[in-house]
Amino acid sequence: MKVFIVHAHHERQNFNAALTKVAYQTLTEQGHSVEISDLYGMNFDPVSDRRNFITVKNPDYFKQQEEEQYATQMHSFSADIQAEINKLFWCNVLIFQFPLWWFGLPGILKGWVDRVFAMGIIYGGGRFYDNGVLQGRKAMLSLTTGGPETMYSPTGLNGDINNILFPINHGIFRFVGFDVLPPFVAYAVARGDEEQRRAYLEQYRQRLLSLETTLPIQYPSLSDYESGTFQLKNPAI
Amino acid sequence: MKVFIVHAHHERQNFNAALTKVAYQTLTEQGHSVEISDLYGMNFDPVSDRRNFITVKNPDYFKQQEEEQYATQMHSFSADIQAEINKLFWCNVLIFQFPLWWFGLPGILKGWVDRVFAMGIIYGGGRFYDNGVLQGRKAMLSLTTGGPETMYSPTGLNGDINNILFPINHGIFRFVGFDVLPPFVAYAVARGDEEQRRAYLEQYRQRLLSLETTLPIQYPSLSDYESGTFQLKNPAI
Repeated sequence: MKVFIVHAHHERQNFNAALTKVAYQTLTEQGHSVEISDLYGMNFDPVSDRRNFITVKNPDYFKQQEEEQYATQMHSFSADIQAEINKLFWCNVLIFQFPLWWFGLPGILKGWVDRVFAMGIIYGGGRFYDNGVLQGRKAMLSLTTGGPETMYSPTGLNGDINNILFPINHGIFRFVGFDVLPPFVAYAVARGDEEQRRAYLEQYRQRLLSLETTLPIQYPSLSDYESGTFQLKNPAI
Repeated sequence: MKVFIVHAHHERQNFNAALTKVAYQTLTEQGHSVEISDLYGMNFDPVSDRRNFITVKNPDYFKQQEEEQYATQMHSFSADIQAEINKLFWCNVLIFQFPLWWFGLPGILKGWVDRVFAMGIIYGGGRFYDNGVLQGRKAMLSLTTGGPETMYSPTGLNGDINNILFPINHGIFRFVGFDVLPPFVAYAVARGDEEQRRAYLEQYRQRLLSLETTLPIQYPSLSDYESGTFQLKNPAI
């Protein structure tokens, strides 16, 4: 396997770093290749605009998707974006490692998606969901939370973790074609003890060892929807 | 009313700018005050780390929430963050104006939340949800989408827009105490015609004129949950 980890945490001693280290060790020991984009370490710029491109299609009105399609034709993404696109096409497993901040991706990682997942090269022209450009590859979220697991159950105060992660799992990963593996969630690690953290690291190691056999989350396929309206043909299914 | 609009779009001729302009005109004509943070125009930095503070509590290990609590005591947020915190406390209505990118906030706006919504001053110590610091104030999302409305219905390909926005409405706005007004969504404006866009601007104007009487989204209250486990006491409700 070729595994690409996008790592978004600003403290190298944090548990997120321990998880990424376990991933690197576990996977390379098994003979897999691992690439890591450490967004804070790289000083990655998450602001998406004309800086994404070295070309300008329309100087009078900045339409990002139009510039993305043009940059796809002209091979004119900025160097920082092209490097990330190359890693995406190199990998067959993508992992986002991050702390859940405000029930979503940290800004630096959300901006990475905004800039790197460009129309033309990564999606567009009907190439989305199970017809997506990155189909056949797997993606997985690995995250830490501040609150305990009971807060994130279907009857928990914060809402069901699966609903909270749906816009990322379905809206980002599945949208571009990935098979989405169930997330690995380490709850309330800052409040736990050393034993709990060791247990999470071991659980994560087991998840990594079983990446190839883990069943992805099931989503309906494009063919289940009417073309044009994109409505489910048979909502009872 | 004192309305604070956080505006996140990189093209001033875009429909998002037209919506913010309508908001400014409509509200000021009614005698309300309006503050706008134009994040791209301000060159707002969305990367959250030690740059959020002018003090350092712990130089050896960066724990963001600990530094946030310390900065709350010491009044030592960086100038850019303190300015945004001041606008938050000034307003009684907060509006996020943005294009839905990858089913979430643009990175520049997500990073604004990550940096500005600091523990200590904005939440913490049991002050969250209906006991939140910003309780009694209203917040509303105003967004544009690429896809048509049918893609965002409960049986649409992208999933229900209310589920997609739940992590923002509930996880960001409600978490810090806001009453959350139903979102204003302008669908597929880039694909529509001038008449459709005029209709959306007029609909938005009507939403702004009725801000004070619009009922917020109903969420369970803290008292509906067991303390400790944060589980709903009566899931049948």
